[in-house]
Amino acid sequence: MESKAAVYRGNQSFSIDKKQISPPAADEVQIDVAYCGICGTDLHIYLGHMDERVGVERTIGHEMSGTISEVGREVHHLKKGQPVVVRPLDPCGSCPACAAGHEHICHSLNFIGIDTEGAFQQKWNVPADTIHKLPESLDLAHAALIEPLAVACHSVNRANVKRGEDVLVIGGGPIGMLVALVARHAGSNVTIAEINSNRQSYAAKLGFDTGNPDTTDVAKSMHAKTNGKGADVVFEVSGSQAGAELMTQAAATRGRIVMVAIHATKPNVDLFQFFWRELELIGARVYRKEDYDEAMQLLSASVVDCDSFITDIKPLEDIQSAFQMLTANPNAMKTMIKISA
Amino acid sequence: MESKAAVYRGNQSFSIDKKQISPPAADEVQIDVAYCGICGTDLHIYLGHMDERVGVERTIGHEMSGTISEVGREVHHLKKGQPVVVRPLDPCGSCPACAAGHEHICHSLNFIGIDTEGAFQQKWNVPADTIHKLPESLDLAHAALIEPLAVACHSVNRANVKRGEDVLVIGGGPIGMLVALVARHAGSNVTIAEINSNRQSYAAKLGFDTGNPDTTDVAKSMHAKTNGKGADVVFEVSGSQAGAELMTQAAATRGRIVMVAIHATKPNVDLFQFFWRELELIGARVYRKEDYDEAMQLLSASVVDCDSFITDIKPLEDIQSAFQMLTANPNAMKTMIKISA
Repeated sequence: MESKAAVYRGNQSFSIDKKQISPPAADEVQIDVAYCGICGTDLHIYLGHMDERVGVERTIGHEMSGTISEVGREVHHLKKGQPVVVRPLDPCGSCPACAAGHEHICHSLNFIGIDTEGAFQQKWNVPADTIHKLPESLDLAHAALIEPLAVACHSVNRANVKRGEDVLVIGGGPIGMLVALVARHAGSNVTIAEINSNRQSYAAKLGFDTGNPDTTDVAKSMHAKTNGKGADVVFEVSGSQAGAELMTQAAATRGRIVMVAIHATKPNVDLFQFFWRELELIGARVYRKEDYDEAMQLLSASVVDCDSFITDIKPLEDIQSAFQMLTANPNAMKTMIKISA
Repeated sequence: MESKAAVYRGNQSFSIDKKQISPPAADEVQIDVAYCGICGTDLHIYLGHMDERVGVERTIGHEMSGTISEVGREVHHLKKGQPVVVRPLDPCGSCPACAAGHEHICHSLNFIGIDTEGAFQQKWNVPADTIHKLPESLDLAHAALIEPLAVACHSVNRANVKRGEDVLVIGGGPIGMLVALVARHAGSNVTIAEINSNRQSYAAKLGFDTGNPDTTDVAKSMHAKTNGKGADVVFEVSGSQAGAELMTQAAATRGRIVMVAIHATKPNVDLFQFFWRELELIGARVYRKEDYDEAMQLLSASVVDCDSFITDIKPLEDIQSAFQMLTANPNAMKTMIKISA
């Protein structure tokens, strides 16, 4: 079967090709992809940072929604026509991480849409056990936010955010904003630190306290507004040296700091503060099955204002310009590629 | 009443003075100090690193044992002649940390023996609520190890070390060695990374696996001996950049790293590894009441070979040379000052 697909060709370029897609294998389903969002990782791939891992003939994309179009021979719990999202993780099942029940951070994790073919194409074959069924009521463009929202759910769950706690999110990009929304839904008081004034305005419009670390002492104001306590939970989503500094400064004694960001270099970290105030640092990567279920519930409960969060929807043919625009525009939140909805 | 006391006079010097000691206040007891060990912090004070905090007319010392010699008017649960140790923490009771039940890391903690008068003297008045009663059977020289052993208990408890887990202790000085002993008593398999060959030999004599990070790849050997898993728990007790690197390299996926060391500078830390393998970093400082109780039990159960661990016992008059020797000798474990035993 023919499928129109975007293929990453290296050096900030995509081609739109007609590809032959085989029928789904016995344990797979084939999906008519409806929407696929552009993730920060996709931008890194586009910019050539991950050529060694990805190659230059891959169809990428993993923040998707769609409808099952074909079902493999051994798949009995799914039917043609079912709206779905894919949890794009394919763990090895036998490494020490898998053996300990941490399949989502498998030592040899195959991330579908990075390490193997992804969702920027019309027809997509995936293992049936990666599928989460969507309620019919959910808009498919909104449903394509489930993957990044599951990242946020996982981060908030790793921190075990409790009602009434004071939370600081460092970095108000798409993931930081979703973390803030999920943490607020858990009953906490959330402040967002963000240097981009448009993102700061968007955060304020969503009802968050905000601070610009370039112009104000965010740590000082966190301590001031909590009567000297500080943030019970800090989410570091900036990936910057400044974020690595702010995280220890703003945290309360015994505060939990969640490392959501990808730090490409090794920043200086004030380990003395970890000792002195018994801070905790907790890594959070991707999601578990239950984070996906939770993300779906939160989306159905309108925790995310999807219409303002999705800043652009572009057809597959325009994927090249969509990536160009997103790279050039630090104000944007989520750009969706509309594929066959 | 007159009491012979060592007084820190700045610039690597002590004087031995006769001081007038008042009777204990209503809520205090007076102790005939028997032994007081020299702590790493005492060495920092001696070397002049903490003059601003300590001043140059303080009697320091807090790793002590002794016998109650007088009891304040309002103290009814303690009697003259009772052998005791002091948990040298005097929290404010009203800061956010105290309010949250973390008095041991009070924002305005008065550390008795650093911020106020300590135990390198014959007669010592302390708040009665800092007292832990000793069993008669416990040797008072050994009992003076309870304070550093409580640090180790607190660190191991913060990590929640479980039977069968693989543990790496980075730094085999007195605290690292005690952490290793407590972690082994909890049923874990402990490796000690230490660059000093004499300390490494001592660790081996105590039955620990050891590695010298200067000459071997300790992270690699941790992964090799655990079939690719790595250390479930890492205790960073070295306070060095090399230790900050080894801690993330040696840890298992979802491994817990406990920050026991005092890092005077901000080292480069591989935050990417925290994200990628969902590591945790957990600060551990001093001890809670229950850590002291546990330390006392472990000492009574001979978990520490006190006779080899205490490398020297010197009279109070020789405190100056004891500090000199300890500063010059990186092989030593614990030096005790014998005061009035």
